[in-house]
Amino acid sequence: MVRGRISRLSVRDVRFPTSLGGHGSDAMHTDPDYSAAYVVIETDAEDGIKGCGITFTLGKGTEVVVCAVNALAHHVLNKDLKDIVGDFRGFYRQLTSDGQLRWIGPEKGVVHLATAAVLNAVWDLWAKQEGKPVWKLLVDMDPRTLVSCIDFRYITDVLTEEDALELLQKGQVGKKEREKQMLAQGYPAYTTSCAWLGYSDDTLKQLCAQALKDGWTRFKVKVGADLQDDVRRCQIIRDMIGPEKTLGRVRGLSRGVSGLTWLLVALSDSISSLGATALPRGWLRADLPVKSLFLQMMDANQRWDVPEAVEWMSKLAKFKPLWIEEPTSPDDILGHAAISKALVPLGIGIATGEQCHNRVIFKQLLQAKALQFLQIDSCRLGSVNENLSVLLMAKKFEIPVCPHAGGVGLCELVQHLIIFDYISVSASLKNRMCEYVDHLHEHFEYPVMIQRASYMPPKDPGYSTEMKEESVKKHQYPDGEVWKKLLAAQEN
Amino acid sequence: MVRGRISRLSVRDVRFPTSLGGHGSDAMHTDPDYSAAYVVIETDAEDGIKGCGITFTLGKGTEVVVCAVNALAHHVLNKDLKDIVGDFRGFYRQLTSDGQLRWIGPEKGVVHLATAAVLNAVWDLWAKQEGKPVWKLLVDMDPRTLVSCIDFRYITDVLTEEDALELLQKGQVGKKEREKQMLAQGYPAYTTSCAWLGYSDDTLKQLCAQALKDGWTRFKVKVGADLQDDVRRCQIIRDMIGPEKTLGRVRGLSRGVSGLTWLLVALSDSISSLGATALPRGWLRADLPVKSLFLQMMDANQRWDVPEAVEWMSKLAKFKPLWIEEPTSPDDILGHAAISKALVPLGIGIATGEQCHNRVIFKQLLQAKALQFLQIDSCRLGSVNENLSVLLMAKKFEIPVCPHAGGVGLCELVQHLIIFDYISVSASLKNRMCEYVDHLHEHFEYPVMIQRASYMPPKDPGYSTEMKEESVKKHQYPDGEVWKKLLAAQEN
Repeated sequence: MVRGRISRLSVRDVRFPTSLGGHGSDAMHTDPDYSAAYVVIETDAEDGIKGCGITFTLGKGTEVVVCAVNALAHHVLNKDLKDIVGDFRGFYRQLTSDGQLRWIGPEKGVVHLATAAVLNAVWDLWAKQEGKPVWKLLVDMDPRTLVSCIDFRYITDVLTEEDALELLQKGQVGKKEREKQMLAQGYPAYTTSCAWLGYSDDTLKQLCAQALKDGWTRFKVKVGADLQDDVRRCQIIRDMIGPEKTLGRVRGLSRGVSGLTWLLVALSDSISSLGATALPRGWLRADLPVKSLFLQMMDANQRWDVPEAVEWMSKLAKFKPLWIEEPTSPDDILGHAAISKALVPLGIGIATGEQCHNRVIFKQLLQAKALQFLQIDSCRLGSVNENLSVLLMAKKFEIPVCPHAGGVGLCELVQHLIIFDYISVSASLKNRMCEYVDHLHEHFEYPVMIQRASYMPPKDPGYSTEMKEESVKKHQYPDGEVWKKLLAAQEN
Repeated sequence: MVRGRISRLSVRDVRFPTSLGGHGSDAMHTDPDYSAAYVVIETDAEDGIKGCGITFTLGKGTEVVVCAVNALAHHVLNKDLKDIVGDFRGFYRQLTSDGQLRWIGPEKGVVHLATAAVLNAVWDLWAKQEGKPVWKLLVDMDPRTLVSCIDFRYITDVLTEEDALELLQKGQVGKKEREKQMLAQGYPAYTTSCAWLGYSDDTLKQLCAQALKDGWTRFKVKVGADLQDDVRRCQIIRDMIGPEKTLGRVRGLSRGVSGLTWLLVALSDSISSLGATALPRGWLRADLPVKSLFLQMMDANQRWDVPEAVEWMSKLAKFKPLWIEEPTSPDDILGHAAISKALVPLGIGIATGEQCHNRVIFKQLLQAKALQFLQIDSCRLGSVNENLSVLLMAKKFEIPVCPHAGGVGLCELVQHLIIFDYISVSASLKNRMCEYVDHLHEHFEYPVMIQRASYMPPKDPGYSTEMKEESVKKHQYPDGEVWKKLLAAQEN
């Protein structure tokens, strides 16, 4: 099926002026313009199919990632797609281990973001040629082929090729049923759209009320800039969504719970909604008391040092957050472990991952028991290939994966990974949900579809990465129409 | 003294075709072209003094770093130098925490290499205006000012501002004597010039013989690509330099040893040369039996996974290396800790740092007891500012700092840091030495001076970062004369 030689790679700097509305603002990123380095690869095949890939950025610096994509291009151009996907591990290694380029990484920062954009385009192309969405391409792939996409370098002390194969073979059991379940019910989501740090209390209340009407039950709030503000904002959300149990209790109770016992526990309002989706088919979340489903998560976006994180969160513990996300530097594995040790007894889990730069960091976060929720990102890691290794390590350590999404395009991409994860790897929805942010989907040819606060599996072939050409043109930086106007206005 | 407003920042892509001779080749970087993003900042002061800064790269990708420097430039331009150095912590934070740019780092990879180049130029400018070499500027700076240059974010669980101040105040004792000692004897060095992986056995022998003649006693050999090759090459070096004791024994014996006892131990050939430079003044290394001074270090440049590193090095233990450098991924703190646990009992220490991307990684390497030798780099970390924090953490954990150097310009820069470290922080030369590679110094206005295998403290004002304009012009990529010829030859 796979055909053609890569004949062209183009990359563009596409920016959306989200900072104008305070969208996406948090304690460390106060004025993000959601942006992307947008890669399109073409082949010499007659089908005219293009592969589109993105990596997400926050505005300034996108041009640096564009430059890095161009530096990687020679590894892709003039290669047969069948040679690339036929030895995907080798190709991944080639991209990430170029003897000169690796110095400016390796496998981190700009050059790894660029790698992600290029590889995302390759996966989009491959899936389009196969006529399947990426999640389905992965679900239908036999375990040996899946494993052949993964570079196990630096993780064999935790996950060998044989381990991975065994996990994937176990994942075959019940796969068909889980695929049907996904197609019918979708993958549970939570929303971050209501509580950006730059939003006023009124905006927060209004968005939260609307989200509740739309069926959302899980809300993430940005914290970390000012404690009094955090207390006030968390109280607003808690007041609107109602009380909730702590993570500690949830974890304690959810062990060994299933079937009818589970339902009784759920009805008694002592377990989180997260377990609800793990009910036997037929038990829909709508059957449960609404109050028991509501959850609040908090996100500090790396604002704190280790002692500060513990102190600050101790003061927010009364709002019973399921997790605190990115309490400190994404590089600080031992720091996260220390924070986790202090906060888990208060019922607060640690979540991190959106800025963890490669599988080696995730490996250690798992080894060090530094997180209770693992947040993969579809654009910071080396595309599907590297995310596969992280999903498998998370499975081995029995840590739930709750992907990072939002930005521009991240929801579109990561839904494929998490739906595959449920069907073929984790086989569980317990304590699992995928972030959702309601921005910028209109710029994509195949935007996400959310129903009843769940991601519905995409049906179009590819990785849902293709942007509308008109949107790209308008938002190209600095020469697109939108930016020409904005920059002219700034000058006046 | 400090004067002027930054009126111009230029950055150039300068590459030296070192790969043609196999110089710098190792198990992961087989064909490096030693390169630099070279930054020059100018002020509106009438003195005409320019600040020059570099970051080191391996050829391809230098243009990406250049692009990142340009992305940072607006943080520097139109700033008064006195405002920058008057709140250096604030300026550092501004450069590294830009709300949009930090997404493509943060503090890692391309954007952090660019930060280093910019800040190195600021330090060069500052020191030149003060009429002092950077090491002397630092040595003369009072502890409070030194501390005000450091961003303690993410390291306060290990080193607070107060801790740092206390360490620096303790370092004041005996400072004058140590400065005199440095000026007279220099800082001990080891050479990596003899045993690049791409060199033939004959070249290796010839260079090693020449280095012995020149007074070198400590040799680093590149390993990790092929075990049989490694065995043969290590044997060649060991045969040429003579037998040496293991690290384990050295460490055991050197504790509590001083003065005459020390000399007796040294004479009995049971202690490494590293202690020799810690002798009271007057006892020169030349007084000691030569054989006792000779050491061999090994460097795998990240080639192995954790289990492989232990297995491979067990087979090279018979050559009694003082350390194995970069046995695995620079991101793998827990991996280094595991390797360290396995190899230290065999007398082999773990050294790493040249690709550790920021202070948070070094903090954890120290916390996890993952290394016995800490290798700072003057261009990967955020210049003097971030290196100060690492030197102080190393002091707190009593781990010797043995800087990474070589490449292009790294020797020129890092000598300032390690000489300052000895005079004002560590006050010890035990188990300490600085890497030296004999390449490309001729392109600098103020090249390093090596005497009796030691770095002699530079006396010219600045950070020794200024390149000869003619060299820059000739080696600019791709339009300099050298590259025009090479690229034309490649096309033919």
